Amino acid sequence: MAKVITLGEMLLRLSTETGQRLRKAYNLEVNYGGAEVNVAIALSLYGHDTRFVTRLPNNLLTDGMLNYLESYKVDTSYICFGGERIGSYFVEVGAGNRSSKVVYDRKYSSVSEWDKSEIDFSEFLKGQDVLHISGITPAISKAAAELTVELVKEAKSHGLFVSFDCNFREKLWTIEDARKTFKRILPYVDICSCGELDLKYIFNYDVDAKLSDALQLANLYEQLLDDFPNIVALYSTKRNQISSSHNTLIGYYYINNTLYMSNEVNMDHIIDRVGGGDAFSSSVLHGYLSKWEAQNIVEFATTAAALKHTIKGDANLVTENEVMDLMANGTKISR
Amino acid sequence: MAKVITLGEMLLRLSTETGQRLRKAYNLEVNYGGAEVNVAIALSLYGHDTRFVTRLPNNLLTDGMLNYLESYKVDTSYICFGGERIGSYFVEVGAGNRSSKVVYDRKYSSVSEWDKSEIDFSEFLKGQDVLHISGITPAISKAAAELTVELVKEAKSHGLFVSFDCNFREKLWTIEDARKTFKRILPYVDICSCGELDLKYIFNYDVDAKLSDALQLANLYEQLLDDFPNIVALYSTKRNQISSSHNTLIGYYYINNTLYMSNEVNMDHIIDRVGGGDAFSSSVLHGYLSKWEAQNIVEFATTAAALKHTIKGDANLVTENEVMDLMANGTKISR
Amino acid sequence: MAKVITLGEMLLRLSTETGQRLRKAYNLEVNYGGAEVNVAIALSLYGHDTRFVTRLPNNLLTDGMLNYLESYKVDTSYICFGGERIGSYFVEVGAGNRSSKVVYDRKYSSVSEWDKSEIDFSEFLKGQDVLHISGITPAISKAAAELTVELVKEAKSHGLFVSFDCNFREKLWTIEDARKTFKRILPYVDICSCGELDLKYIFNYDVDAKLSDALQLANLYEQLLDDFPNIVALYSTKRNQISSSHNTLIGYYYINNTLYMSNEVNMDHIIDRVGGGDAFSSSVLHGYLSKWEAQNIVEFATTAAALKHTIKGDANLVTENEVMDLMANGTKISR
Amino acid sequence: MAKVITLGEMLLRLSTETGQRLRKAYNLEVNYGGAEVNVAIALSLYGHDTRFVTRLPNNLLTDGMLNYLESYKVDTSYICFGGERIGSYFVEVGAGNRSSKVVYDRKYSSVSEWDKSEIDFSEFLKGQDVLHISGITPAISKAAAELTVELVKEAKSHGLFVSFDCNFREKLWTIEDARKTFKRILPYVDICSCGELDLKYIFNYDVDAKLSDALQLANLYEQLLDDFPNIVALYSTKRNQISSSHNTLIGYYYINNTLYMSNEVNMDHIIDRVGGGDAFSSSVLHGYLSKWEAQNIVEFATTAAALKHTIKGDANLVTENEVMDLMANGTKISR
Amino acid sequence: MAKVITLGEMLLRLSTETGQRLRKAYNLEVNYGGAEVNVAIALSLYGHDTRFVTRLPNNLLTDGMLNYLESYKVDTSYICFGGERIGSYFVEVGAGNRSSKVVYDRKYSSVSEWDKSEIDFSEFLKGQDVLHISGITPAISKAAAELTVELVKEAKSHGLFVSFDCNFREKLWTIEDARKTFKRILPYVDICSCGELDLKYIFNYDVDAKLSDALQLANLYEQLLDDFPNIVALYSTKRNQISSSHNTLIGYYYINNTLYMSNEVNMDHIIDRVGGGDAFSSSVLHGYLSKWEAQNIVEFATTAAALKHTIKGDANLVTENEVMDLMANGTKISR
Amino acid sequence: MAKVITLGEMLLRLSTETGQRLRKAYNLEVNYGGAEVNVAIALSLYGHDTRFVTRLPNNLLTDGMLNYLESYKVDTSYICFGGERIGSYFVEVGAGNRSSKVVYDRKYSSVSEWDKSEIDFSEFLKGQDVLHISGITPAISKAAAELTVELVKEAKSHGLFVSFDCNFREKLWTIEDARKTFKRILPYVDICSCGELDLKYIFNYDVDAKLSDALQLANLYEQLLDDFPNIVALYSTKRNQISSSHNTLIGYYYINNTLYMSNEVNMDHIIDRVGGGDAFSSSVLHGYLSKWEAQNIVEFATTAAALKHTIKGDANLVTENEVMDLMANGTKISR
Repeated sequence: MAKVITLGEMLLRLSTETGQRLRKAYNLEVNYGGAEVNVAIALSLYGHDTRFVTRLPNNLLTDGMLNYLESYKVDTSYICFGGERIGSYFVEVGAGNRSSKVVYDRKYSSVSEWDKSEIDFSEFLKGQDVLHISGITPAISKAAAELTVELVKEAKSHGLFVSFDCNFREKLWTIEDARKTFKRILPYVDICSCGELDLKYIFNYDVDAKLSDALQLANLYEQLLDDFPNIVALYSTKRNQISSSHNTLIGYYYINNTLYMSNEVNMDHIIDRVGGGDAFSSSVLHGYLSKWEAQNIVEFATTAAALKHTIKGDANLVTENEVMDLMANGTKISR
Repeated sequence: MAKVITLGEMLLRLSTETGQRLRKAYNLEVNYGGAEVNVAIALSLYGHDTRFVTRLPNNLLTDGMLNYLESYKVDTSYICFGGERIGSYFVEVGAGNRSSKVVYDRKYSSVSEWDKSEIDFSEFLKGQDVLHISGITPAISKAAAELTVELVKEAKSHGLFVSFDCNFREKLWTIEDARKTFKRILPYVDICSCGELDLKYIFNYDVDAKLSDALQLANLYEQLLDDFPNIVALYSTKRNQISSSHNTLIGYYYINNTLYMSNEVNMDHIIDRVGGGDAFSSSVLHGYLSKWEAQNIVEFATTAAALKHTIKGDANLVTENEVMDLMANGTKISR
Repeated sequence: MAKVITLGEMLLRLSTETGQRLRKAYNLEVNYGGAEVNVAIALSLYGHDTRFVTRLPNNLLTDGMLNYLESYKVDTSYICFGGERIGSYFVEVGAGNRSSKVVYDRKYSSVSEWDKSEIDFSEFLKGQDVLHISGITPAISKAAAELTVELVKEAKSHGLFVSFDCNFREKLWTIEDARKTFKRILPYVDICSCGELDLKYIFNYDVDAKLSDALQLANLYEQLLDDFPNIVALYSTKRNQISSSHNTLIGYYYINNTLYMSNEVNMDHIIDRVGGGDAFSSSVLHGYLSKWEAQNIVEFATTAAALKHTIKGDANLVTENEVMDLMANGTKISR
Repeated sequence: MAKVITLGEMLLRLSTETGQRLRKAYNLEVNYGGAEVNVAIALSLYGHDTRFVTRLPNNLLTDGMLNYLESYKVDTSYICFGGERIGSYFVEVGAGNRSSKVVYDRKYSSVSEWDKSEIDFSEFLKGQDVLHISGITPAISKAAAELTVELVKEAKSHGLFVSFDCNFREKLWTIEDARKTFKRILPYVDICSCGELDLKYIFNYDVDAKLSDALQLANLYEQLLDDFPNIVALYSTKRNQISSSHNTLIGYYYINNTLYMSNEVNMDHIIDRVGGGDAFSSSVLHGYLSKWEAQNIVEFATTAAALKHTIKGDANLVTENEVMDLMANGTKISR
Repeated sequence: MAKVITLGEMLLRLSTETGQRLRKAYNLEVNYGGAEVNVAIALSLYGHDTRFVTRLPNNLLTDGMLNYLESYKVDTSYICFGGERIGSYFVEVGAGNRSSKVVYDRKYSSVSEWDKSEIDFSEFLKGQDVLHISGITPAISKAAAELTVELVKEAKSHGLFVSFDCNFREKLWTIEDARKTFKRILPYVDICSCGELDLKYIFNYDVDAKLSDALQLANLYEQLLDDFPNIVALYSTKRNQISSSHNTLIGYYYINNTLYMSNEVNMDHIIDRVGGGDAFSSSVLHGYLSKWEAQNIVEFATTAAALKHTIKGDANLVTENEVMDLMANGTKISR
Repeated sequence: MAKVITLGEMLLRLSTETGQRLRKAYNLEVNYGGAEVNVAIALSLYGHDTRFVTRLPNNLLTDGMLNYLESYKVDTSYICFGGERIGSYFVEVGAGNRSSKVVYDRKYSSVSEWDKSEIDFSEFLKGQDVLHISGITPAISKAAAELTVELVKEAKSHGLFVSFDCNFREKLWTIEDARKTFKRILPYVDICSCGELDLKYIFNYDVDAKLSDALQLANLYEQLLDDFPNIVALYSTKRNQISSSHNTLIGYYYINNTLYMSNEVNMDHIIDRVGGGDAFSSSVLHGYLSKWEAQNIVEFATTAAALKHTIKGDANLVTENEVMDLMANGTKISR
């Protein structure tokens, strides 16, 4: 099992109960999120040694955040205290034809005002095997973008395997800013989550629209690899949103010039889709680190992501065995 | 935006949580209903100036009812206080193959004992543009039927545009009583919600059963318009009930000798279907008042009604933008 | 209406709310289960006089169990007090692709240590018409197996009609132990629930795998009847598990050399599947005791079992009228 | 143990959670009440055979009411079905300086329209030892008053011991009406709950205000006994309301020309005071029927009433042992 | 009744349930607060016409805030939309010996970045009778301080009666900043809430510590009036905190050279103390506007503040009648 | 800060909500307990490095237990997996005059069947500074008693400081068995919690009953120290139970021939008293390890124990600062 470090923003998440609009909510369910937090927890449950680094103010809410991370044995000892705010977000959970809606309140968070000059990267990178970071972190602020670029460089120079999930969020920054920053990050990346839309609109690659989804994606990946030949593996998912409660999901995994594609998983009766992408990323990473066969990795990751949709909260609280069991046996009551 | 007045009975609604039978319920969720209340709130959220008139006893429960109406800026200043009871109903919320069941407890309510002689109609009709009323109000009691007939006459004489939703409820009165009263009301109505079953069994119109649903409905509407040529527009929905949690819905809107029909909306993962008809009525009325094109009106109203099925409580707590967004983009998480 | 006695273990059931994993549950919903308890309650709601016999320690939890039984008029006056533990089980309720999981904690329960020598069977069998017992009871412990065999013998000698539901649970005993015990019980049984897998793997009957499901089952039933010609009727269900929230169900009922098969019922939006088998058993028994026609019995029982899936808790809290209404009218809101 | 019958109105009770005003309540807790229901349940838990008679409409709410009664083994087989409404009441639970407030909605209930001519009293009185009834029942309506008078006469003629709790409620009737009806009832009463205010303002007895509370009460009881020498025992409580959450209680019991008075019980941290009087009545009755010494009866009843204040819902869910234990040992954790 | 305008920050409040530490909270109760919001609602329930002015971003949370204000008929039509954040705060509700703890997250709120140059004060002051503002508003930011000073000047010049509650919060600003700003505000103030500690440490007045509390306060008020002779009336409370659940409260009101002092109110079983000061302020203001006698005003306000402690949420959801009833009759169940 | 190891049974705790009897509970709150678990968590929050050792079966419930321990950074890596049951207990939470009641279901737990021969004590004792264990562990079973005696011997031989809390539970074993085992344990103990009743009835020491509580306790401690001169410090509390919701507490701490006694703390509005003793023990141990003055230790520990009574669950979720703050400032809202 690997020693995996993730760095990013940890968010307080407050969600409505199903069927309730935010304007009428008298109660909000408390969870914690953040792409890198979700990946750390998933990998911890898969058996890896994980560490999460961030910056948080020090108050009664932070206590709960630390307890949450520690409960899944994520090492919190390198978390810095400082700044003024915990980033937070509100989720109005959708159902049927009504979309889920997210209200972010993450401006001026402690992470957004974290200057790379305050950080001694070797302190927490030393001895680690893998770094995972998402494209949300550089999107938070200019300072965070600089910090992220520095982090991947430092990670590389410390010999870590670098995992990056593009995760473009248009509410946080522009396509142009994302493009510039991603191009500074990608030369240090070993494995990368990047979807068709990212490749077309952020990286501006062209592809013949008449090709099948899979062929288009393979072609786009080849173009990316031409520019960043350091990347070993690429992955993404294709989600079909029938309704808020019913999606389907296909996983893609590209390695050694081949695109592997999972069976399409039917995800009806969705409980909570937030964190589905992080569940996929952490599972691909787990499969890669476990040296599984490519087809197995993509099926495992797609199944794991599907399981996430059945669990409240951002983290995918499942074990490797549970994912394997669903792949092998389908959904059966266990008694 | 129009000044819209509605008058009717406001009900206290007590519902079980999903999966619980009423006999085992240890908690009931509080909501408020009533067809005209629901329409007033929906129109208020669409941007109209609304007023709701009713008669209620004055007690601690009434305070909550007034707060509820006022929270959506429905004008409550013409509500009368008197009588002995708040009409109420209990909903055992169904799921899957188990039907929802309603237990009414609305006999002897303040509205049911409201005599038209107590009312100075001009007081609250003056300056208003539109009156909406449903066929539930005249069904409550003989006094309420007389009051309703008088109300539509007065509204007409004050120059209001009159909207009427037949909404026949067989637990409240007989087909014969409904027929007699509807025939007294319809000469004053400008826009009317009336379904195929109403037209066949209440108004006794015949139609060739071999025709398609849409052609039958168009034919029936033409017969109604022969009798009540004052009516400008007619509408209704066709619901297919696959289970308590899964219905489909088609909307119909008839104007200028043409029947417009919406796409069929799939409503799976239903949260609360009560108020779906009122969501449709208020949306047709909003479209008509906004002078939208007919096809647009019927698509908008069907989409709005579908959204209602995803929200707890009787009222359709959505804005025009939210309905438009679903029509344009389908169900996508917004973040 | 018949006087029906059931005997078995009554369990305390603690369930998570939907979407919550057991490891994060801060609240558990309290219900009570046990195959024979479920059958007693269902038959009581169908109008029969029922009695449930078991052994329980005497503490504050037992008070709740007795209240539960008595609330459905199940006679508790022959329940013995003794032993040390109430058997219990925890249900992590699944959703979508995530299976429900059961953690049993029923070892050393009062029933498991109940010796038949302590029991005067005629005391509670006298005057009763029907005994129902499941294959879970003999699986609990050696003592319980002896007690069960003795019970069916005594019931037969007191002239009772004996109903037995094989209900093999591999977590409780081995196929070999089940086979031996079932063979001691079946000579006294009049009506028996026994599925295809039981017939193949417990009773070791062979069948041509190329036949349809129904023909295979009919053939297997014939073999069982060759060995136990005392059995009058046999039944089982075939469940297709699309996901935790979506199953389909077909019921089978074999009598007078004919296999009757229900329509396949679509059970989407499942709330709680525990107790579905007991709902089917009690409904077949009710139909048999009511002398209904075979096809009617199997449709009724399948519909009743489907209704169970929409209700929280193990017991099928429905009346005969409610099942009939669903058979006749489908799922329609009743208001 | 005695066979005790009670007759009266059973109410659906809907309560707010502590700290919530009714106008903002989004959830109401479901309980069932009614003075005679509460007494029947308390006596059932003390070990008596109890029966409750009333009139109820037949709907899904009634099912829950019957289950509730049956769960405590109260015989419901003589409950009549008819009429249109279940009487109900809403409780805004007070706290600290804020009083609890009750909104009744019991007009036109099935019991209020129950005519004595419909009833064959001997059917349910036959074989019973004791009748308990409260002064709320005759207050409901004229018909109910006539029914009550007839009931006590019939009970007496069937040889039952008659227990009556005056329980004057000024929201239900006038002092004059209460006086007239009580004077028709009391000649048939054996044991009676009657407080100082009842004696002064309903029965118009005078007493020297300079005497101590106890001496005044004794004097008033003597006057009542002069008028109704058939009464064997009298009792009441004196409550001091420091706040909604903190009361004190003294019990009085008069028999054989002597007034027995309990220690004053401090009731701080009150959970639910509704049903406190019924807990006292049922406990005095239990003590009397058990032939305990007078001082023991009044201490037991006061302690039992105090326990009621710690339990949600109207019924005093305690056993004789639990009351005795509190009397003997005070409040100690039992582990 | 008066037309009262208040201006300030509206806060989203998220509270734990009693007995739960924030670090373990899985659910938070939603309420809304802000000193001026609380005063507006209380005055609205007392019958005044109220208006609340603030600046808020426009999102799904804002919808709920507007609905909340409107439900109590507070006019929201002058609320400005802009800025980036809704100020919020988390309350870990204390109990017994454990203090309540507040975590603020109100930095960078829309109100804190509201420049007075954006505002046309006459637009919303015109036609109003009274302005109420608290010392929290100028504490939020420099811009807010300037805005507040301008507001009271403008209010005065529009002929409004100005009410100011000093409400010093040391987490928001320094004593020095408060002193400077208060001195700019007070020349325009007619009625002012100001406590002993404010007078000693902010205004630096000396007083003979050997005098009684009341005499000290009177002396301090005289010194303040020497400096700001425009002030007509002054008030404050003295709270004794026995525990989080048990306080006592004395109200003081100074007018026409006389200090009036209420009875000490015992507030045991506190549900929620947040908003107690605003309940007092709004009640003094109501009494003053109603031209009640001074002693009556201070008793009323202290009783009203005590009631607030029994109600969840910041607002004092009581009517004048309810306060009067508690003053006259103490705490008695009303049924 | 010290390295502290504790070993014992971890329990699943299921509690009713306040005011609900267990027989009517439809929901139970999940917590985890066990004396040594509680001490480990409290010490972890005080800043020590803690480790908890136990034996548990491996199932979905165990996952939650491990997450709980890890969330407070208690090292779980030496927990053994085996056996069949998780010990559990149900708490019917009392209020006012109604006592809390505990129903244990811990027979046959994994710990009770843990044989010392399976254990390599040096594996987890090595490198630790302090061992804490309670008298509940040896009471569980004969095997557990042997294991405990061996454990303290081994701890001593590894140079650990041994802390022992007698904690006699009469439901688990007899006074005689406790006496024999305690006498085998005490020779290895450095600091010991032992109350007056333990000293009199388990150790059979006599004392002059006319002496004050404190003098009696000092005298009894001297006798114990005569027998076990190895003990450095002794402590206990005296609780006065006014009601379930209101207790008072005095702490005693004996060291260097002197008995130190805390102020009496008033604990009104108790939320959850379970774990109060463990809060006291862990706080004395923390004070001792921090080399505080004796009087300070006993005041700190009593205050910490009082705080525990305000928090749901067994563990005392407070920091050293929070206890200090209450000692210094009393109960004040912090905002």
